[in-house]
Amino acid sequence: MSTSGEVLLSQYMAQIRHDVDLALAEVATYSEGCPQVLGDAIRHILLAPGKRLRPMLVLMASDACGERSNVTMASACAVEMIHTYSLIHDDLPAMDDDELRRGRPAVHVAYGEANAILAGDALLAQAFEVITRCEAAAELIVRCLQELTAAAGPCQLVGGQVDDLQAENRVGTAEQLQKIHERKTGAMFRVSLRLGAIAANATNEQIARLDTYGKHLGLAFQIVDDLLDEQGDMQQLGKQTGKDTAQGKLTYPALLGIQESQQLAADLIRQACEQLEPFSETAEPLRQLAYFVLQRNN
Amino acid sequence: MSTSGEVLLSQYMAQIRHDVDLALAEVATYSEGCPQVLGDAIRHILLAPGKRLRPMLVLMASDACGERSNVTMASACAVEMIHTYSLIHDDLPAMDDDELRRGRPAVHVAYGEANAILAGDALLAQAFEVITRCEAAAELIVRCLQELTAAAGPCQLVGGQVDDLQAENRVGTAEQLQKIHERKTGAMFRVSLRLGAIAANATNEQIARLDTYGKHLGLAFQIVDDLLDEQGDMQQLGKQTGKDTAQGKLTYPALLGIQESQQLAADLIRQACEQLEPFSETAEPLRQLAYFVLQRNN
Repeated sequence: MSTSGEVLLSQYMAQIRHDVDLALAEVATYSEGCPQVLGDAIRHILLAPGKRLRPMLVLMASDACGERSNVTMASACAVEMIHTYSLIHDDLPAMDDDELRRGRPAVHVAYGEANAILAGDALLAQAFEVITRCEAAAELIVRCLQELTAAAGPCQLVGGQVDDLQAENRVGTAEQLQKIHERKTGAMFRVSLRLGAIAANATNEQIARLDTYGKHLGLAFQIVDDLLDEQGDMQQLGKQTGKDTAQGKLTYPALLGIQESQQLAADLIRQACEQLEPFSETAEPLRQLAYFVLQRNN
Repeated sequence: MSTSGEVLLSQYMAQIRHDVDLALAEVATYSEGCPQVLGDAIRHILLAPGKRLRPMLVLMASDACGERSNVTMASACAVEMIHTYSLIHDDLPAMDDDELRRGRPAVHVAYGEANAILAGDALLAQAFEVITRCEAAAELIVRCLQELTAAAGPCQLVGGQVDDLQAENRVGTAEQLQKIHERKTGAMFRVSLRLGAIAANATNEQIARLDTYGKHLGLAFQIVDDLLDEQGDMQQLGKQTGKDTAQGKLTYPALLGIQESQQLAADLIRQACEQLEPFSETAEPLRQLAYFVLQRNN
């Protein structure tokens, strides 16, 4: 990636983050009937500085397919809300027991366990609500909700997390690990790209290509995540490091070694970008984002 | 209620329970990607014998407005799934810490806390998915999902539970207690009736009347619930009793005394039934159900 490309991507990403943050702040305004502590708990984590990677994929997918629609930004908010709910629940003492998230105390640390469980529950319901409320053709809304509810359900996001928890203190194969992450991380990456494409009225071939791009990107992201947990800087990451090793978790570095894990991530990024070939320069941000994911340090 | 009316209601209710149980069993079949333990945890509680009161309200509302549609049974399943997810999470040690539910060990007792949290999460996403997948006009599906996501969100179901937890060991007024239960119990009662009516293509006046019926019925149900917690039989209820008093919870009997609570519940049931006057005999089951709620012992 050229230096000017890097600058352009960072501007484009900053703009998207800004737009998404504004939209999320609007979703998370206090409404009648919402208890103060619940609203506070939701805002504490939802509006904390995040990478906004999944909403970015939604917007970039719409851009790659030619246009953003009302459904684009609603979907971007929804995928970030679902990601955030999953972080809140994953951090709970009964799950990964993490105390630091997005550079802030985890929700259960700041607001107690009950409020953390309920804040996650509320965000999940609200994520779907945001899409039901957007001004668009009902057929389009239903199609997006079919995709998103399935991705967040027992066979995808939640199923992956269940298997991930069971994989603690266990040996396993690279195949099993891939199956976990295809659901735990991959499902939300893929659905983000699919929603962005569907919102832009993309062809089935475009949707399929972006889906495959998302599948490879998601797995590469998870490998880099494992590497950062082993080698990364806690300050920069805004969350605890070294936990996977301490918990004897099944990870890519533990399974393949550091060098081979790095090589696998690089291969996946290359395969992801191959899927973008038939797209014009409108897919350039997705290309650059893939290399950003490979090189990220937070 | 006459004896023949009682027999008819009990047959009608048994039929609805049977139909709903069949539909729920189909929703909860194991699918690819869903880990065995997650599917087991979901089935453990979702398919346990329950009153199925909320799905019953959906079906009875459709019947009262003249016809059931594809959306009727999908909505009936969805409201029961959301109710069940809320039971799983409410029973957690960090919340009400209940060990018995529907006559079985609570999900976290049988499958561990992490799996209980995740089973609840999965059921919530799946509840909405069931509606997105039903064969009906997209406009109708979107309208139902707008109603249901709002009822399950931070301003209704979840907000009520947050306030209910905060009301432990606290004094409060009957007004505050009503505000909690209008959201914690009432929201799902009301939306069940609204969805049943909407699925039957009801008029706005019919929807509004059934909504008000549900509001009164929900509050009466909660008062009876409080009375049963104080006086009921654990075996018959299939859950622990006496917990509210032990936890110093704000309840109707604690606030108003037993006799006045019983009187309030009876008044609310009368007000609920007044809303049914313009309906023909198609609303008879709803009338009888209201008195069943008042007299229930489980």
